[in-house]
Amino acid sequence: MSSLTEDPAGLDRQNPEAEIAVRAEAYRNWGRWGEDDALGTLNFIDEAKRVEAAGLVSEGRVVSLSQSFDTDGPQKGWRRRINPVHTMTDTGTDAERGNQPFPHGIGGADDYITMPLQCSTQWDGLGHIFDHGTAWNGRRAGDVVTSDGDLVTGVEHAASVIVSRGVLLDVARHLSPETGELPDGYGITAADLDACIRAQGESSRVGRGDILLVRTGRLARARREGWNDYAGGNAAGISITAAGWLHRSEIAAIATDTWGFEVRPNEFDVPAFQPLHQIAIPNMGLTIGEMWDFDELAEACAARGRWDVLLSAPPLPITGAVGSPINPVAIF
Amino acid sequence: MSSLTEDPAGLDRQNPEAEIAVRAEAYRNWGRWGEDDALGTLNFIDEAKRVEAAGLVSEGRVVSLSQSFDTDGPQKGWRRRINPVHTMTDTGTDAERGNQPFPHGIGGADDYITMPLQCSTQWDGLGHIFDHGTAWNGRRAGDVVTSDGDLVTGVEHAASVIVSRGVLLDVARHLSPETGELPDGYGITAADLDACIRAQGESSRVGRGDILLVRTGRLARARREGWNDYAGGNAAGISITAAGWLHRSEIAAIATDTWGFEVRPNEFDVPAFQPLHQIAIPNMGLTIGEMWDFDELAEACAARGRWDVLLSAPPLPITGAVGSPINPVAIF
Amino acid sequence: MSSLTEDPAGLDRQNPEAEIAVRAEAYRNWGRWGEDDALGTLNFIDEAKRVEAAGLVSEGRVVSLSQSFDTDGPQKGWRRRINPVHTMTDTGTDAERGNQPFPHGIGGADDYITMPLQCSTQWDGLGHIFDHGTAWNGRRAGDVVTSDGDLVTGVEHAASVIVSRGVLLDVARHLSPETGELPDGYGITAADLDACIRAQGESSRVGRGDILLVRTGRLARARREGWNDYAGGNAAGISITAAGWLHRSEIAAIATDTWGFEVRPNEFDVPAFQPLHQIAIPNMGLTIGEMWDFDELAEACAARGRWDVLLSAPPLPITGAVGSPINPVAIF
Amino acid sequence: MSSLTEDPAGLDRQNPEAEIAVRAEAYRNWGRWGEDDALGTLNFIDEAKRVEAAGLVSEGRVVSLSQSFDTDGPQKGWRRRINPVHTMTDTGTDAERGNQPFPHGIGGADDYITMPLQCSTQWDGLGHIFDHGTAWNGRRAGDVVTSDGDLVTGVEHAASVIVSRGVLLDVARHLSPETGELPDGYGITAADLDACIRAQGESSRVGRGDILLVRTGRLARARREGWNDYAGGNAAGISITAAGWLHRSEIAAIATDTWGFEVRPNEFDVPAFQPLHQIAIPNMGLTIGEMWDFDELAEACAARGRWDVLLSAPPLPITGAVGSPINPVAIF
Repeated sequence: MSSLTEDPAGLDRQNPEAEIAVRAEAYRNWGRWGEDDALGTLNFIDEAKRVEAAGLVSEGRVVSLSQSFDTDGPQKGWRRRINPVHTMTDTGTDAERGNQPFPHGIGGADDYITMPLQCSTQWDGLGHIFDHGTAWNGRRAGDVVTSDGDLVTGVEHAASVIVSRGVLLDVARHLSPETGELPDGYGITAADLDACIRAQGESSRVGRGDILLVRTGRLARARREGWNDYAGGNAAGISITAAGWLHRSEIAAIATDTWGFEVRPNEFDVPAFQPLHQIAIPNMGLTIGEMWDFDELAEACAARGRWDVLLSAPPLPITGAVGSPINPVAIF
Repeated sequence: MSSLTEDPAGLDRQNPEAEIAVRAEAYRNWGRWGEDDALGTLNFIDEAKRVEAAGLVSEGRVVSLSQSFDTDGPQKGWRRRINPVHTMTDTGTDAERGNQPFPHGIGGADDYITMPLQCSTQWDGLGHIFDHGTAWNGRRAGDVVTSDGDLVTGVEHAASVIVSRGVLLDVARHLSPETGELPDGYGITAADLDACIRAQGESSRVGRGDILLVRTGRLARARREGWNDYAGGNAAGISITAAGWLHRSEIAAIATDTWGFEVRPNEFDVPAFQPLHQIAIPNMGLTIGEMWDFDELAEACAARGRWDVLLSAPPLPITGAVGSPINPVAIF
Repeated sequence: MSSLTEDPAGLDRQNPEAEIAVRAEAYRNWGRWGEDDALGTLNFIDEAKRVEAAGLVSEGRVVSLSQSFDTDGPQKGWRRRINPVHTMTDTGTDAERGNQPFPHGIGGADDYITMPLQCSTQWDGLGHIFDHGTAWNGRRAGDVVTSDGDLVTGVEHAASVIVSRGVLLDVARHLSPETGELPDGYGITAADLDACIRAQGESSRVGRGDILLVRTGRLARARREGWNDYAGGNAAGISITAAGWLHRSEIAAIATDTWGFEVRPNEFDVPAFQPLHQIAIPNMGLTIGEMWDFDELAEACAARGRWDVLLSAPPLPITGAVGSPINPVAIF
Repeated sequence: MSSLTEDPAGLDRQNPEAEIAVRAEAYRNWGRWGEDDALGTLNFIDEAKRVEAAGLVSEGRVVSLSQSFDTDGPQKGWRRRINPVHTMTDTGTDAERGNQPFPHGIGGADDYITMPLQCSTQWDGLGHIFDHGTAWNGRRAGDVVTSDGDLVTGVEHAASVIVSRGVLLDVARHLSPETGELPDGYGITAADLDACIRAQGESSRVGRGDILLVRTGRLARARREGWNDYAGGNAAGISITAAGWLHRSEIAAIATDTWGFEVRPNEFDVPAFQPLHQIAIPNMGLTIGEMWDFDELAEACAARGRWDVLLSAPPLPITGAVGSPINPVAIF
């Protein structure tokens, strides 16, 4: 029978349904912020937290935590997830040649993009995942996300919210100091998170309203070796057994440098798919970031001996979206 | 004969070519930041400026300066500029019904967007406008922006740059205190900008590396009356005669709440099209923001009696893009 | 109480539900072509019919019945229906300038399209309309068309089918010989169709497997006056009372030169929306063409004194589509 | 030195420039159909040819020659060529659940497509390829195809044209009767085409205005083995040495079951890219079809002992397009 063990060895690897259900029940935040809530754990960010975070800016540096948005990305078409397609509707070549119908020598270039909202660095919105047909805060999934988009919890609700203290836990450096990369399939546990915080020191403490940034080194390997199965393949990531840690820490959001945030293959011997998402998004109301790039920030943090920053990562307010492409920036 | 007059009455309204050329020549920054520069006036932002800006955060508030991204926007198809089209590739309705091929009760929603990069709140990249076939820093337009995008000055170069002190000049409130809206066709002059700064007080001083936010009230009117010709029609905006002010102030970037940043109709009696763009982007290297929403921020600034904020407005790093959809946030 | 009257004066204009239901029941073809059917009335086309149709080719002329696919179309964004957006990924301008990475002087141009499948001349697929949650042949709508498309009756099933005898009934010329255009809101009745056939003569007889082409003149007016409300506005079209005629004639398909095939406003005094679609598509299994262009064909038919042609109008086999852009051609 | 040899052994494999140039010069049709021509060799189709073709319809059968348009296609992203992305804006799932705002029980499904125009079965338009910056009929490439599309020779010009006699030459069956597939890199020569015609018999004669369909068996192999490098990789195809044959036969158009129509690798020992395209499109004005499916038609033709059909293959009239997705149908 399933318990809330935080030791992966204690999981019933034959029974994802039960292991998910027990945690969904235990860590469910439905109603915590009212019936109409569209923010979930982002509610943990308060103004004092932001003032604290702004106080971390001492050097005036900015590091983008975003991967590129272009056709050279990792997507391979799974469930129609492709890399962004960027096309031009006006070009400098046409302007230079005099092909454009403008007066006094002005010319212009203009462009389009077509992309899945989760093709590159992104936030998962609260409408992205359901648990047995139920969405965040206990709503019926079909009342929330229809062909018209997310009618209730679209990412636009977070447009003025996601600025807070960000804390980078470089779990890869902590556990694999020589390579700075975790092996595929490594499930990061609650104990690992705590140990990493202890090792990195006081600036790494994680608490209410913080945004947790977890580096696995998976992106660094893709830089060396090519994308291969970066999108949808195996990777280190958060263990389902860390669900309780995510809940009790009262973090506002979490992001990783992997495609899928949680460990893959998932920790079951029977077919399973992103079980920690099923707990975290519809039940906890946790906003999850994926495909972030922490490599430059990790270097900077190690050099400074501080791991917390002002993190500004508001979604693009696409009405009704269940995810958002973003360029999160660490300011310190 | 054209001069550098900052008085609109002194413009030769028959001769946009000459009025543009004299200012392009006078305010040209080519080579100022080296041959390889891809940032233009964004180079004015330095680390001290960002530390100063972070020091402005006292309340912990965040205000998004972005309009929505959806089909209810102002675009009407001019040069293929349409409103964003957001479509779903998976929905909660399908998840709830059991139509999805996933185990243990997990379901998901996923989505796509197709949009012109300048359909809603955006930055114009440095490759967006050319002057007689020449792009920023004196490059040939056809060497810079081809069908493959901006090969030299794409917005991705600014991914870690655009965080600075933002200063809101509510010129509409200053000049039209009763309505808070400027009339269409009102060209904001250098003298207007200086007077607004004086009226708003010390927190409104504008200098090197600041990002200038100019409120005309045009968006507020669209909120009341509907979009009508918001996209491409008449509006208040910066006068071509303020080009010198934009140059000598050494601002890093400027943004307005209008479609086109500069006054429309343009200030000539013969066919003209966005003459200040032609000076500002390819010659000065000035990054321009359009279709921003300053209404909530203006209320907050007036209430606080301070008009400067920490502004975080990094572009989405779309490789080779000549513009970027953004959600700029004012943090204060 | 509702009957199967073919006289519009006999309709209960307060009760679309009942008027639809009685006809849906009477003209339902479920099971007529087996449980697995994906073609509906297209099954009426047999090989003899095609041989007959090919025999109509005496001049060797081809007339396209398609409108253009471009941004100058009639769509205004209703339910995200926009005009097609065509963008270039390579251009002659770049090729001429030597911007392309190809050897021996070869250059190329390439392009993209983004469009609703029903933005211009099109077939409605059998998955396009449902009656109280039921799709063609009695299937549950949610088993047929999900976010993954039409899993059962996608237009690709008709890829090798839609070539038959086409018969043009120029009802506009018949009823309004001076203008060649019917007034908006004119509902074409069974009696009108019969009278038009009699007036046009023997080559206009319509029977099993034929594809009926009905000209209202609405497109001709749009050519003169501009699109205005061509998409979604008022127009002449088939009356709901002609449902029985459509059924007993055993036509394979029908097409009109209007946005919506049936008369608009719809023939009720209470809110109604495309009631004849609700009878024809999910119940009869009738394939419907919209936004076709019959003006040149009408001139040719009148000149020849013959109204039937070989019609080749196969859909583009987009897997799972509920509609298809087409270029139907009349060959005669 | 280069000659017009029709024997591949006679090619100067070090000098694609010269081998292309001599044929471009010899087979150039510029001016043949007037200064304003937008059709090239499609002009060879006359009304008598179409009457002849219609006379071939004896069985009333239709065979689609189109591959599918979906995400399971061969494209791998080369020059942004992706597989079509089909998304739904309304679904049966939503309709069944009552999520749609329509009266009296009507529900609907609607959809979008985003695709490169040459992602699946297609015609290359006359603006698709240039020779040293020159387009069909001797026009400057930058005057013809800009970011606004093909302003002169867009595929829409052929909307009422491409219906003619189609002749299938099953060169694969002729040369490789056991497998029905040619090996990759096999260049089909003029002699091969003549021999195949002789072997297939009188119904295979090819002359003015015919549309030539050449089966290599490459698609059949993809069906067995998966797409692999179908898009852009090696394949049998027309030899550059057959350019004269294509010219003197006065065919209106040609299509193959491969990605690129001509043999790949191309027949040179130095870098080369689609040299026969460079001769055929901008110089001859030949319309080329690619990625067609001839497998079912080949079976039918072999069974009938006849290889000619009525071919209806009009492009979708996308204004300014340099290619068109199509569903060509063989009627016989």
